This record gives sequence, C-alpha cells and structure tokens, in this order.
Amino acid sequence: MNEKIQALREKFKNMDMQGMIITNPVSIRYLTNIDAEGVLLLTRRENVYITDGRYMEKVNKALTIEDEIIVYDFKELTREDYENFFTFCENVGFEEAHLTYAKYKEYMHRYKINSFEETEGLIEKMRIVKKEDEIGCIKKACIITDNCFEYLRKFIKIGMTEKEIAFEIEKFFLTNGADSLAFDTIVASGPNSSLPHAVPTDRKIEEGDPITIDMGCRYNGYCSDMTRTVFAGYVPQYMKPVYDLVLKNQLRVLEELKEGANLKLISKSVDSEFKLNGASMIHSLGHGVGLDIHEYPFINSKSDFILKENMVVTDEPGIYIPGRFGVRIEDTVLITKYASQNLTMSDKGYIIVGV
Amino acid sequence: MNEKIQALREKFKNMDMQGMIITNPVSIRYLTNIDAEGVLLLTRRENVYITDGRYMEKVNKALTIEDEIIVYDFKELTREDYENFFTFCENVGFEEAHLTYAKYKEYMHRYKINSFEETEGLIEKMRIVKKEDEIGCIKKACIITDNCFEYLRKFIKIGMTEKEIAFEIEKFFLTNGADSLAFDTIVASGPNSSLPHAVPTDRKIEEGDPITIDMGCRYNGYCSDMTRTVFAGYVPQYMKPVYDLVLKNQLRVLEELKEGANLKLISKSVDSEFKLNGASMIHSLGHGVGLDIHEYPFINSKSDFILKENMVVTDEPGIYIPGRFGVRIEDTVLITKYASQNLTMSDKGYIIVGV
Repeated sequence: MNEKIQALREKFKNMDMQGMIITNPVSIRYLTNIDAEGVLLLTRRENVYITDGRYMEKVNKALTIEDEIIVYDFKELTREDYENFFTFCENVGFEEAHLTYAKYKEYMHRYKINSFEETEGLIEKMRIVKKEDEIGCIKKACIITDNCFEYLRKFIKIGMTEKEIAFEIEKFFLTNGADSLAFDTIVASGPNSSLPHAVPTDRKIEEGDPITIDMGCRYNGYCSDMTRTVFAGYVPQYMKPVYDLVLKNQLRVLEELKEGANLKLISKSVDSEFKLNGASMIHSLGHGVGLDIHEYPFINSKSDFILKENMVVTDEPGIYIPGRFGVRIEDTVLITKYASQNLTMSDKGYIIVGV
Repeated sequence: MNEKIQALREKFKNMDMQGMIITNPVSIRYLTNIDAEGVLLLTRRENVYITDGRYMEKVNKALTIEDEIIVYDFKELTREDYENFFTFCENVGFEEAHLTYAKYKEYMHRYKINSFEETEGLIEKMRIVKKEDEIGCIKKACIITDNCFEYLRKFIKIGMTEKEIAFEIEKFFLTNGADSLAFDTIVASGPNSSLPHAVPTDRKIEEGDPITIDMGCRYNGYCSDMTRTVFAGYVPQYMKPVYDLVLKNQLRVLEELKEGANLKLISKSVDSEFKLNGASMIHSLGHGVGLDIHEYPFINSKSDFILKENMVVTDEPGIYIPGRFGVRIEDTVLITKYASQNLTMSDKGYIIVGV
C-alpha cells in the first residue's frame, strides 16, 4: 500500500478509529496524488476513491497499482454499497475544519456511521515534515520564483502600474514551468506598501518608491513564497533604517531556524527588537509552505510548534508605517538538523529597479 | 433598510427564526455589496458586519447609510459583546452548506446560541431569479467573453501551447473590463479534449486538433460561462458526426429553455438522444450562473427546478471519447417568459483556427 496512507492508518490505532472519510482535496492530493473532485474512504480493509465520470481518466492516470486504491464512479454505487463501507467500524474520522455541517450530516447518514469523530488536523500535521520528493517540488517552485525576480529587476520601469507588474509575474510563472500562482501576487508601491495585504492597483511607479513584491508559484502542486521590497530609482535615506532593521531581523531569524528551534521565542524576539525601535510586528513572522501556501507550522508569538528537519517555512518580518511606506523581506526556508537552508535565494541588499 | 436584507428578514418569520449568522462571502456580497473577509449577523434589531482592520476602509466604502449595517473590527469586541448579539433569540439560522463543522461548534459557543438552525439554501434560493442590475452585469461579462472569442479566432496558431492560449484569455479579460476570471480557463487540445475538466498543458496545437475552450469572466462580481470546440486547420471527417450531435442538442435545448420548462425532462431527452447514438452525458447539462459560476438551478436528470423568468443558466451538452477527443458547446442563457435569450452569442458552426 502507498506509504502515506499506511502511515495515516497507523495513527488510527491510538485514536480508536477504524476508518476515515477524507474530503479536503489537499489531503487527498497529499495521500494519493489525485487532483480531482471526490472523496477518499479508508475503510477497515480497503482504500476507496469515489469520483464522477468527468475525472475517471485523470484519476486512473494519477494512481499506480501500489497505491491499492479502488476507484468508483459514484453512479455505480448503490445505497447498500455506501452502507457497507464502514460496517464493523465503531469510530470513523472526518476533517471537521473542512467538512461543512451539511455534508457532515449527509455522510453520517449515507454511510450509516455510528460515531463520526473529529480528527484535529491529523493529516495536516502529517504534512508538516516534507518528504524528499515534496522538497524537490518546493525547490523547483523557488527556483522559478528567483528567476522571475531576476527578470523583474530589468523589467520594472518607472511609470508602469502595479497591475502591469503583477500581470508580468503571472505570465513569467506560467511560461516558465509553474502550474499556477501560489496566491494572488502583491505589488504594492509607494504608500500602498504600508498595507501588508495590498491588491495591485493602477498606481504608476514613481521615482523614490519602495515596491513590495510578494509572489509565489506552484510546481506540481507545491508552493513557493518570497517577498522583496525594491526601490524605484534610488533608496530614500529615511527608508534605510527601516529596511536595515527588517533585513537584520530576517537574517537573524534565518540563523535561528533549525531543528528544535522554539518558534514562539523566535517570534517574540523579533517583536521586542521591533518595539525597541518604535515599530511592531502586525502579522505572523512566518508559516509552513507545502501543498497549501499557508499551512502548519505557524510562526507567531503563540506558536506551539517546535521545528523539525525537513519542515519548510517562511521567514518574513515586515514593518508598515500607515499611509507612508512598508518593508517586508521573505524567504522560503528548508529546516535541517543544524541550520536552515534558503530555498529562495534572491538578493536582499538595497535593490534599485527602473533605471 | 437595504431591500435584500429586508426580504430575507421577511422569510425569518415563517421559519420561526429571530436571527441569522451569514458566513458565505457570496451571500454577504449579494446582500450588502461587501467583498471582504467577515461575518454578517442579522440580530433581532440590527444588521452587524464583523471584519478586521485590513478591510475597514473597503467595507465602509461599499456601504451606504440606507444599508443600516453596523461595522465592527473584531478586535473591538469582547466576549460579552458576542454573547449579547443573539440574546432573546430562540432560533438562529446558519448556512449549513458553507459553515464547516468546526466553525459550527465554535460559533454556537461564542455567540451562546440556544438553537442553531439549518436554513436550507435560503439565500441561494433568493439569488436564483436575477434582478435587473444583476442581469446587466452578467450581460457585460458575456459581451467581454464573446469579444475574447472573436480575438482568439485570429490569435490561435498551430504550434502554440494550451497554456499560452489560456494565458492570452486571462490577459484579454483583465485588460478589457473584467474583474477576474470566473473560473480556471480550460484549453484542451487533441486527445486532451476528451477530459471535460482538462487543465491547460504545454501540449502544442497540431493540425487537425479539436480545441475545447471553456472560459468566463466576472464583471462586478457576476460571471459568464461559454464553451466552444474549434478546430486547428481543418475539421477531421470522423469528428463531424460528434460535433453535429452535440450542436443539435445544444440548439434544441435552447429552444426548450423558458419559463415553466421542466429541467429534468430536458436533461433526460439529451441523455436518451446521446444514448441512441452510442454516446452518453457524463456531466450535467447546465447550471445557474450569477455571483457563483455554479449555482441554482442545476440542470440534470435529477433536477427539481422549474425555470422562471430572469433566471440565468448554461446549456452545455458534451460528448467525450476517452483518449481520443471531445466536443462541448455551451452558452449562458437568460430565461424569459416565452423563450430563452442567448447572452453569449459567438458562432457555433465549424470554426477553423490557426490558418
């Protein structure tokens, strides 16, 4: 049987669960490589994927015999078939953060489930430590992202709009091997850079603007995430101390990220250094990256996670001065036993564009 | 008070509901014009929208005094505030097809709700029959889509990849007045066209390829949806009977769509005619279109809906021969009292591209 499903089944024992209904497409993608619409059932003896006619060909292509997954078109299944999947199961798990209340009731009824149990991020937690092939995909997504940044350094010109730049980023990703964007690109120039979640506008780049570019793509489903704040024409003197403070902290965190690191403490130390300088962290310091752009572990001052080898996280401190400007610097980082390894490797010195 | 919220509150009476928590962003957009992250509470006396700091400015811009909606940043609210919203409410409704099981439990607790009641698509059903301004937006999205198709007829060349074409479609939409794509564009060429939900690949268009293009955009939030199967260079003889059968049925359905039409019967008749010809319908014949790309009414052989004036639906039969090719033809259609009116109006004869 496929390794990941086997590992998941191992966990059922301690939870006194005899089966599970998996509905989050990201969980299904992780466990089976299937990227379609359907439901994965782990019954006492079998792994079953139920989809519809539209996806049959695609699903069968994604699977190998070693997966040991039986695929059904839901049209082939009778009421009895549904009721038989979980006979002899006392407790059947489900993904409560994904399943809607309506589906929860529908499934409980359709599969005649005795006791339908919350699983508290069981699969999401398995996904935190990445396997070699997963790291390979994230690395490729990061290389495409670095290449895109290299391209942008020459592409961006004074007078271009934020939207034009965002559009060029998407085009670069799609024509250079990425599946898609990992998230909506942020291109925030001048005062817009003071909004951490700015949406690209028709504002034209002006000389002296900081431009915060937060971008990432997917490769084989896996995400990259990188932010740089660059400057149009020159770096205004008054922005330098802010840039330097963000960069100093981003680099220090990079030093501290490694197996065993305490994310809460790291996060608090950035927070206090910012405070000493009259600034504050208004968003998380980072987050896990994988099939989801934001996943476990979350890095903030409430984080309970301890880092382990082969986790992939972001390191992204930022300072935002309302109505004036902001700076954020972010890398995607692989955790190893004794250090962290940058997967995004673009320059972080003062970067001048548009000249 | 805003008309739509008033109409919704009217419905509370028959349902013995004194309040509702609305979480589906599409419902919130429909009722309030707010396009942000947050929760809409209809309490006994007030309409309350709870969001976070990032969206305050945007939300206040979207609202008028007539809406009578009080906006809070969630940071301003104490535990007591939450518990007070629904005091004196016996039954409070929620959207069970949207709220996850985890959030259902969290909200019931946070708002101290006595009886948290399913509302069975209450708001989705209000959305089925479109208002004049909604139809106006869908029409605009359809015009942009037709213009894009016109552009593509000249743009597509043999040797281009599916991804390049998909990208050009997005660019056309974004630079010609659309807010965004309505869904991920499908460009499926040659054997890929046998997958109804193909994702654009790096496959290059070859002479004799069928190319199924399924595309749509949003205008002011409202969607368009159109599919054409075009041919690169020439139409292979063996594909013509399949194309003709799909087109014949698409046109026949267009004739039948009007107020009072029985969607189940229409759907079954296409199914049987396909079967007579050795083919079968492997997806629904159509669906409603509005703020969601797929919404009520669903048109398939189990559909319980009866059409009414000012509904907007798609008509999209398709035939797919695994591993070989497929044909789908789809229009977005406005239902009137005595007929249907095509909102997408692009050619449906054999369309040759790339020459």
